Amino acid sequence: MQEKLKQLKAILADVSHLDKTIKILSWDQQVYMPPGGAESRSEQLETLQRIKHDRFTSEETGKLLQELKPYTAKLDPDSDNARIIMMMSRRYEKKTKVPSEFVGELARVTAIAYQVWTQARAENNFSLFRPHLEKIVDMKRQYASFFAPYDHVYDPLLDEYEPGMKTAEVQAIFEPLRTQQVELIKAISDKPQVDDSFLFQDFDETRQWDFGVQVITQIGYNWEQGRQDKTVHPFTTDLGTGDIRITTRIDPKLFNSAFFSTVHECGHALYDQGIPKHLSDVSLNEELSLGIHESQSRMWENLVGRSLPFWRYFYPKLQKTFAAQLGKVKLEDFYKGINKVQPSFIRTEADEATYNLHIMLRLEIEIGLMEGSLQVKDLPKVWNDRMRAYLGVTPPNDAEGVLQDVHWSDGYLGYFPTYALGNLVAAQLWEKIEQDIPDMEDQITRGEFSTLLGWLREKIHKHSAKYFPQELLQRITGSKIDSAPYIHYLRNKFGQIYNL
Amino acid sequence: MQEKLKQLKAILADVSHLDKTIKILSWDQQVYMPPGGAESRSEQLETLQRIKHDRFTSEETGKLLQELKPYTAKLDPDSDNARIIMMMSRRYEKKTKVPSEFVGELARVTAIAYQVWTQARAENNFSLFRPHLEKIVDMKRQYASFFAPYDHVYDPLLDEYEPGMKTAEVQAIFEPLRTQQVELIKAISDKPQVDDSFLFQDFDETRQWDFGVQVITQIGYNWEQGRQDKTVHPFTTDLGTGDIRITTRIDPKLFNSAFFSTVHECGHALYDQGIPKHLSDVSLNEELSLGIHESQSRMWENLVGRSLPFWRYFYPKLQKTFAAQLGKVKLEDFYKGINKVQPSFIRTEADEATYNLHIMLRLEIEIGLMEGSLQVKDLPKVWNDRMRAYLGVTPPNDAEGVLQDVHWSDGYLGYFPTYALGNLVAAQLWEKIEQDIPDMEDQITRGEFSTLLGWLREKIHKHSAKYFPQELLQRITGSKIDSAPYIHYLRNKFGQIYNL
Repeated sequence: MQEKLKQLKAILADVSHLDKTIKILSWDQQVYMPPGGAESRSEQLETLQRIKHDRFTSEETGKLLQELKPYTAKLDPDSDNARIIMMMSRRYEKKTKVPSEFVGELARVTAIAYQVWTQARAENNFSLFRPHLEKIVDMKRQYASFFAPYDHVYDPLLDEYEPGMKTAEVQAIFEPLRTQQVELIKAISDKPQVDDSFLFQDFDETRQWDFGVQVITQIGYNWEQGRQDKTVHPFTTDLGTGDIRITTRIDPKLFNSAFFSTVHECGHALYDQGIPKHLSDVSLNEELSLGIHESQSRMWENLVGRSLPFWRYFYPKLQKTFAAQLGKVKLEDFYKGINKVQPSFIRTEADEATYNLHIMLRLEIEIGLMEGSLQVKDLPKVWNDRMRAYLGVTPPNDAEGVLQDVHWSDGYLGYFPTYALGNLVAAQLWEKIEQDIPDMEDQITRGEFSTLLGWLREKIHKHSAKYFPQELLQRITGSKIDSAPYIHYLRNKFGQIYNL
Repeated sequence: MQEKLKQLKAILADVSHLDKTIKILSWDQQVYMPPGGAESRSEQLETLQRIKHDRFTSEETGKLLQELKPYTAKLDPDSDNARIIMMMSRRYEKKTKVPSEFVGELARVTAIAYQVWTQARAENNFSLFRPHLEKIVDMKRQYASFFAPYDHVYDPLLDEYEPGMKTAEVQAIFEPLRTQQVELIKAISDKPQVDDSFLFQDFDETRQWDFGVQVITQIGYNWEQGRQDKTVHPFTTDLGTGDIRITTRIDPKLFNSAFFSTVHECGHALYDQGIPKHLSDVSLNEELSLGIHESQSRMWENLVGRSLPFWRYFYPKLQKTFAAQLGKVKLEDFYKGINKVQPSFIRTEADEATYNLHIMLRLEIEIGLMEGSLQVKDLPKVWNDRMRAYLGVTPPNDAEGVLQDVHWSDGYLGYFPTYALGNLVAAQLWEKIEQDIPDMEDQITRGEFSTLLGWLREKIHKHSAKYFPQELLQRITGSKIDSAPYIHYLRNKFGQIYNL
């Protein structure tokens, strides 16, 4: 059996190398590629995707997995080998259920839909995008049908990003949370509002960059194993063990934008930098839960990066960097400013208290579309109605409403909930961290992050995707994903800031 | 047959995409990859090389080529399809003659040899490198044996870089040239020497970069389809149609280094930017003669970029950029300075008059090693003896002598002659260009390069590797590669500069 395992791992190493290669091509495409390279690059990516798909879904892989499965009974069920065989059998079954023609067709449909969406958003014209979204929804229902029977038609979509999670679980988590978050926002809106005008000033780009670099270096980002570049949309990418890169964007008129995006991406990068090579080499990273991944970025960005202890340490340094802009702004006012709650139209600009409501609205719409209880043509109205109900605001137009996100045009249905799950998991982990590291707050006040990073490495990062997200949370905290710690965290934090 | 041709082209498209992908990974490795990514990157490259090799050498490719060969009799022998089938059959036959185990073994041997060479050069210790070079020479002889019978044991090596060329041809070209170049250098050394001290001053790096960019933009480098970055060793790379990148390095104490390297790489890039997509998509570029490619970079660097008409146009601009350094240096003195002849130890720093002698020495050594008439252990002595005979100088140590070049440690035997062939071909083409474009010199004096670039596009670039190098020269100039135009060019140019 050792020989067969070796053969399987050789295939998985190829798959992993092809996966990282695709990411290198995409990184370059977004960071440095000249415009003239677009056509060739998309052809190269298509070829590599196909070769990768064929390599993994070959009969050889299927045969090896089938022969290896019985062998796992003799292994420790938590051992790497048992988990690799189990996760790869699961992936193989999934990938081979979807016909290649369907994959090709979806790629073509979304390539066009993306172009049309760009135009529709620019022209604020939903009817342009509508037939393309209808086609995508049809195809996503067809996709789900490959996995029938299922508990819920949305399950196969969700499973792409949250391995093993069910729609019913997600709904059970979000349903009570929604009411509580809506109430919290209403309570906040009745109180005197916070001043954050000092964040909107001229902040020299190079100094913003350097300050961000200083902070994430202290947090633990390993520059020997990564780099940061500028892009329109910040992202983190794993180009191979020892090469985990991040990108950022800088708004010269607003402090928040680059700084919190840099810390957010650093959070993702710390996860990837903590994954051991032998798990990366079998391409296990591809099963990573996006919710767990997002919990790391959100934790560093929000629970650490928007906390008072964090700024007790870094604010004097920031004041030195931007003396003219912040020299006279008190720490407490700065802290309140970066935590200002203000319902807005745009998800990516939302604060901690309102963010999840943007997600729930999208999740409900996606489930409705998949169930057939909602029609694409009705989306602008449904969107605006729920924005009013949840956040008390009405988007001035569809460009700032239903057309704002790229995800649907890319065919990424099932993706949105991972953002909100990330928030919940971050708070849930944080409760456990505060138990395990009682002086966590003091350490942060001293600018010490190595104990925290060590905890995350040990409990989460080093496992890569050996465990399903619910399973991982259970192992670490004793319970599955739960919204209680998060609502507790919000009430506590914003209760203090807004005197609730 | 159309169907089979389509199938062949689909395979070749994959091979081309894999080839460009490997180049993207290598570009990133040399330009932006953090040090921690080294191990993963070399594994990714190994996997991609293997997949590319397997895709091309599959039985499917062989069968298609065999079925398509008879079909070429009905085609115009100069048509794309006839040439593609011919060139790919040739490549298939070559690639399938070399066992994969041998390729893997050579990759391992050279990977270690490269490391040892780095150390040997740093420590000026040839004996460290000697056993590794002996192993490489053994393996290169073994490589040649896969192609027996051959006219000369060096032929299969040469063919890797100059398709179709024979050792006897190269020897016949270089033999008379050597005596003539040695005589020329001796004549020059008897004359008063040229002053180039003004080139060795402080030249601001950003201004150097910007001036280089200005010049190659005017020459015709298309920035929509390329970019320039900094690296230790400048190079040009073809990452796909519409994405041809160059790199440069800047010496803040010397003007020549960055400028002529930028123009040199631009010359390579103009070639690649002129290759049509349908020929690139069948991976025909892989058969490009390095000598012809080098003729383009040398032409722009030397015949254009070190000419008096060129600087009649650009020198006033350069004087504005570096007023303090060059404001008082006359055009004629600048021209003489950048063309100073001075025998030196290092090939990459050699001037036009001495360069080829560095190559001939290497070629003779390579042929001697392959024939068995020379032993690796004797190389330091042989090297120094010939340096004295050809250039009248003795390297102070092996680091600046036999250990100076990376090529042998990489297993690139057969590569060196392409540099000298590039010089000869450039001069030979230039004679034809002056006939076809009688006011070429006036155009250059006016800073107009589009007629010249158009000529190169039409005669050379657009064909990619449809023709063998000798065949291409014959088509354009009416004769095969010939050293007469080059020696004529040298005598004329340096005769004027040195009053010979």
